[in-house]
Amino acid sequence: MQLALSTWCDVEDYLRSSKALVVPIGSMEQHGPTGLIGTDALCPEIIARRAGERDNFLVGPTFNVGCAQHHLGFPGTITLRPSTMIAALEDWCASLSRHGFRRIYFLNGHGGNTATLHAAFAEIYARRSLNPAAPEESALTLRARNWWELPAVMETCRQLHPSNDGMHATASEIAVTWAAYPEQKRTRKLQPKVAPVNTFTDANHYRENFPDGRIGSDPSQATAANGEKIIAAAVDALITDFRRFESS
Amino acid sequence: MQLALSTWCDVEDYLRSSKALVVPIGSMEQHGPTGLIGTDALCPEIIARRAGERDNFLVGPTFNVGCAQHHLGFPGTITLRPSTMIAALEDWCASLSRHGFRRIYFLNGHGGNTATLHAAFAEIYARRSLNPAAPEESALTLRARNWWELPAVMETCRQLHPSNDGMHATASEIAVTWAAYPEQKRTRKLQPKVAPVNTFTDANHYRENFPDGRIGSDPSQATAANGEKIIAAAVDALITDFRRFESS
Amino acid sequence: MQLALSTWCDVEDYLRSSKALVVPIGSMEQHGPTGLIGTDALCPEIIARRAGERDNFLVGPTFNVGCAQHHLGFPGTITLRPSTMIAALEDWCASLSRHGFRRIYFLNGHGGNTATLHAAFAEIYARRSLNPAAPEESALTLRARNWWELPAVMETCRQLHPSNDGMHATASEIAVTWAAYPEQKRTRKLQPKVAPVNTFTDANHYRENFPDGRIGSDPSQATAANGEKIIAAAVDALITDFRRFESS
Amino acid sequence: MQLALSTWCDVEDYLRSSKALVVPIGSMEQHGPTGLIGTDALCPEIIARRAGERDNFLVGPTFNVGCAQHHLGFPGTITLRPSTMIAALEDWCASLSRHGFRRIYFLNGHGGNTATLHAAFAEIYARRSLNPAAPEESALTLRARNWWELPAVMETCRQLHPSNDGMHATASEIAVTWAAYPEQKRTRKLQPKVAPVNTFTDANHYRENFPDGRIGSDPSQATAANGEKIIAAAVDALITDFRRFESS
Amino acid sequence: MQLALSTWCDVEDYLRSSKALVVPIGSMEQHGPTGLIGTDALCPEIIARRAGERDNFLVGPTFNVGCAQHHLGFPGTITLRPSTMIAALEDWCASLSRHGFRRIYFLNGHGGNTATLHAAFAEIYARRSLNPAAPEESALTLRARNWWELPAVMETCRQLHPSNDGMHATASEIAVTWAAYPEQKRTRKLQPKVAPVNTFTDANHYRENFPDGRIGSDPSQATAANGEKIIAAAVDALITDFRRFESS
Amino acid sequence: MQLALSTWCDVEDYLRSSKALVVPIGSMEQHGPTGLIGTDALCPEIIARRAGERDNFLVGPTFNVGCAQHHLGFPGTITLRPSTMIAALEDWCASLSRHGFRRIYFLNGHGGNTATLHAAFAEIYARRSLNPAAPEESALTLRARNWWELPAVMETCRQLHPSNDGMHATASEIAVTWAAYPEQKRTRKLQPKVAPVNTFTDANHYRENFPDGRIGSDPSQATAANGEKIIAAAVDALITDFRRFESS
Repeated sequence: MQLALSTWCDVEDYLRSSKALVVPIGSMEQHGPTGLIGTDALCPEIIARRAGERDNFLVGPTFNVGCAQHHLGFPGTITLRPSTMIAALEDWCASLSRHGFRRIYFLNGHGGNTATLHAAFAEIYARRSLNPAAPEESALTLRARNWWELPAVMETCRQLHPSNDGMHATASEIAVTWAAYPEQKRTRKLQPKVAPVNTFTDANHYRENFPDGRIGSDPSQATAANGEKIIAAAVDALITDFRRFESS
Repeated sequence: MQLALSTWCDVEDYLRSSKALVVPIGSMEQHGPTGLIGTDALCPEIIARRAGERDNFLVGPTFNVGCAQHHLGFPGTITLRPSTMIAALEDWCASLSRHGFRRIYFLNGHGGNTATLHAAFAEIYARRSLNPAAPEESALTLRARNWWELPAVMETCRQLHPSNDGMHATASEIAVTWAAYPEQKRTRKLQPKVAPVNTFTDANHYRENFPDGRIGSDPSQATAANGEKIIAAAVDALITDFRRFESS
Repeated sequence: MQLALSTWCDVEDYLRSSKALVVPIGSMEQHGPTGLIGTDALCPEIIARRAGERDNFLVGPTFNVGCAQHHLGFPGTITLRPSTMIAALEDWCASLSRHGFRRIYFLNGHGGNTATLHAAFAEIYARRSLNPAAPEESALTLRARNWWELPAVMETCRQLHPSNDGMHATASEIAVTWAAYPEQKRTRKLQPKVAPVNTFTDANHYRENFPDGRIGSDPSQATAANGEKIIAAAVDALITDFRRFESS
Repeated sequence: MQLALSTWCDVEDYLRSSKALVVPIGSMEQHGPTGLIGTDALCPEIIARRAGERDNFLVGPTFNVGCAQHHLGFPGTITLRPSTMIAALEDWCASLSRHGFRRIYFLNGHGGNTATLHAAFAEIYARRSLNPAAPEESALTLRARNWWELPAVMETCRQLHPSNDGMHATASEIAVTWAAYPEQKRTRKLQPKVAPVNTFTDANHYRENFPDGRIGSDPSQATAANGEKIIAAAVDALITDFRRFESS
Repeated sequence: MQLALSTWCDVEDYLRSSKALVVPIGSMEQHGPTGLIGTDALCPEIIARRAGERDNFLVGPTFNVGCAQHHLGFPGTITLRPSTMIAALEDWCASLSRHGFRRIYFLNGHGGNTATLHAAFAEIYARRSLNPAAPEESALTLRARNWWELPAVMETCRQLHPSNDGMHATASEIAVTWAAYPEQKRTRKLQPKVAPVNTFTDANHYRENFPDGRIGSDPSQATAANGEKIIAAAVDALITDFRRFESS
Repeated sequence: MQLALSTWCDVEDYLRSSKALVVPIGSMEQHGPTGLIGTDALCPEIIARRAGERDNFLVGPTFNVGCAQHHLGFPGTITLRPSTMIAALEDWCASLSRHGFRRIYFLNGHGGNTATLHAAFAEIYARRSLNPAAPEESALTLRARNWWELPAVMETCRQLHPSNDGMHATASEIAVTWAAYPEQKRTRKLQPKVAPVNTFTDANHYRENFPDGRIGSDPSQATAANGEKIIAAAVDALITDFRRFESS
């Protein structure tokens, strides 16, 4: 059940039995010469929608542009400044809280979002913490979970791509997108086959260290079939994790 | 060509022949008992993607949550505060400018976004206007266009729904979403058949005046077939309008 | 009755019979070689003060600097960034609301303010919309009206200046200021007589397209006598429109 | 020479011989039962305009709403939050700097503005201070001066109102406004004749301590004739002080 | 009693008998070739801690970086923008208010903080002033006091350094730091012996006018012994002043 | 070498041989009935100062108030909102960059700061990433390291407190503060001896779950002697880690 494809009456009904929903959150950033710019938004969107469809929970719109300043050296990347992202997350959560949602589960597709997501949570919690008279109904419980860290998902990825899955533009995440968008598969000779590993600061520094954008990965291993297996594992894990969160 | 489904190399190629792209922008807000909450994001997304596919121009990710404070009395609506939306649009545009884009065409699906979109444009232009030493390369040309105001689109809508198309949760916009998502069609007895027309301020005031969320519309007229006709007209018009913008 | 020329006791009395006031809002921006920089602030100020005097309603201080980034290529122009203007309007409205005002009517003199004014209204309404527990007394009704779009005013302008009244530095607005400040009349040969019409983005772009600042106008038609006629029409229309707003 | 009543060509001419101007800055706040709400904006406006007319210097538009939170317990008061006022002053100064102004002299009419004015100056200076590569042309020199502290003005006030001139709603400032707006003179029995002196924090606290809004003053001493004498002294002093500032 | 060296149970106990505390506030900025960068934070910290220890009142953590943009031409200086400092002071005060503190006494060590401190107070008070329904418990009383302006302190300084104590990097403030940190005493030939006096704007301008950073001072007069005398006077004065504030 | 206890000449000298410094960053928050409110600021301050003294590197002032909203249910806790902390860190880093520092190493004492610290880093990096013309000199490399995660430190803590060191108000961190402030040792019967482990959201929720503030810890194990051992390990590790960072 997708919020964007529901009516307000549908959501009103849903709220009678649940105060929780899943919001996919990602990024619009380069993923090497063969990975899609939308990879980090698409992966949690694909997983969350399939899980929500199977288990009848509500999936919000995808927060599709995140914190990607370090990728701006590559065309197509779009970033929010962290301060903007905090403001936007405040607004999304305040809107959902207005309707009676009490638990928001962000299924995250981009490691670079994690710090700002948690900073935003603290910003949102701080409103109540600084106001001892805040009504109990305004209390929210927020969670951020990276899809690849859901139980059993990482294991599946390692089985399928035992070496050089990598840290950015990984074989696994690219496989997930190709499972859902098989016509978007790219093949291209990657030089070097396995990308380097290093640290980075800003966009210029990143591009110097990672000439084609990948970190530590060999995405030529990716296949749509592998992607389906990863999605299957992630959907199972998400349903379990979300339902536990919902009732905690 | 969708940015989210492209690689950075694809975008690098694209920039060799064009400095312009289309960004669909909408809202996540109630559209009456039978319209989808995502209607205003879906309509420009559907139209822009079809046009971009047919005419080979780049379509950015959909800016899917906009200014919808007045709809917050209905469950599922999500809003940005206008100040947040301005900050987010600044970041999107600064990111695209960084890569060499010079013209950004926002195909808008929500009348309530218009004021804030233009305020954001002025905020972005003001940076250069206040800084006489700003480099010429940082100049951007921004345009916002409502899809239903593209040439010939309104006429098509009026022909298909000659009376009571309405102002919010219109038969035409709902038809467009059903054309793309036919399984989401809802039928429900609407009371009254044609919704009232009035002004509004905040969410409480809106809900008092428009009990089921619609303004002036009778969406029971909507059909997927009508939606296809509207989309066809809009795609034609967008291609022409965007290409004129690109080369102006 | 001007707020700036009233005492707090006067305002306390006024609030016993009305919860509404008019706030003139304008801009400080070039108006071509013969128009005053303050034109857009002066016009609504002149009209509102005369109307308030005749019909005994309260006129607030003039919000005299607005959104004028595109005019910064011409000396003397002062702008607020839209985000600053939103913050300032929030403060003005919150202050007036504190005293019991419930309806604020902005008589606007500058088309470039419109988007940001409406964005500010949405920002203000959003506070209540996001807070279902907001007290009813904090509800405001805000209106923005361009003085030249008041009923019968445009007709008067067209009768007086049937061609080339223009879009910026119009004969009509300059006439209004000369009616009130006859000693400020300027005569200067304008080249070309009728200014060009075009689009614009930032200040550099504007100045390239409109070398002396005017858009589409021939202000040499302006006379103080014409200005008086326009003021008379606008005062009548404002009184009617404001009183309807006050009691709606 | 008033900026609002000048054309851009006038300002261009002015900048050939001077890079400095005066900006009156005040407040919109209660001034007791007989003082005008606009007193603090009117006084510097009256003085600056007369001085500018006599000595041919440029006087900007009046920054007419300032920091008046403590007066909000009395109807008609309008305040900016200090953070808003800082943003607005940044925009005014950046706009003027864009045109080549290098020295801005704020003639202030409200003691409550002083802190925020200086905070704004530091905010503006900090931009250059934090950016060692800032171009020399962006350097501004900013000054804030209270009109009643100009040389000889306080002495004039004391001669005219040797006792109980007061700290807020003073006989002197009210006299200045009556000199310019003689029809606005109010007479009303004040209880007590001389207002109390005390400290204050927020608006509720202020109203408790100063029941009719005045601090330490007996404004029944004010006359338009006294106001003229004060204005005369202030105009002389301002001309001298501004010209020294301009050439320092 | 230092807050940082207390437990929450200690503070809970303290609040049973007092709702007031002292917060030292300073700056991290150059103090000439022999003065410590931390001087303005150290002085109020030293004085407040000794006073709090002697008279058993609570001393908060030191707000150690303030408004020092004008000193950025000298290595080691750190500044907050005034807008940042206002936000931080809002958070400190909101936190303390949450626990039941009602009176916060800022013992200030830097003249450059004064404007922003008072702007922050107005920002904090404005929240309540703009909200007539704010609960009485949220009322705060805030005070800023420069340590050198406490009764009898200036006299002590003048007795010890009768001439050329100066305005920045004064003999007195340096003496205070050497009393507490005797091992940090520096001796260095100062050229000229007595620093110049002048105005300043931004960091470049400041460094041009004050080549070694001092204003008007001859800090070679400073001794730890003198510092002890000044501290003694300031501690006495602070205790009296704080206790009066606490019970006012 | 402490920045606060240095002169600007000292820092100028230092910059000739190093472009890096350490900034301790902590929090002001409850640490159970026996731990000091300043614990998280004191620990990195103690360790960094000792290391800097031993190895002659520069230690900046302590950023002493951080993100502690969840502890506001306990008296004495002070928090910054994350957005404020980001702004403050931007200012600190911009100031240090102005002087030529290129590498800033934040030695962190509070897990709750981590997300906001990294969000701030991204905000700072984003300025350059969004501006391809930014000068190379403005590039900064920022690092955040928790003192207890330095190599060998955790092992030392585990050896000294093999069980129930805990997650908040740990025996180890309290021991570190008692080593430096032995007179601040508290003994108090803790109920239960070992605190519970759980999740938390805002301050009310935290206080319900952790009645005396501790998480998972038995701080009665702490001794000053243990603290000395931990400090010794941390000082060694910090020197190595900082020097590697400095030359990386």
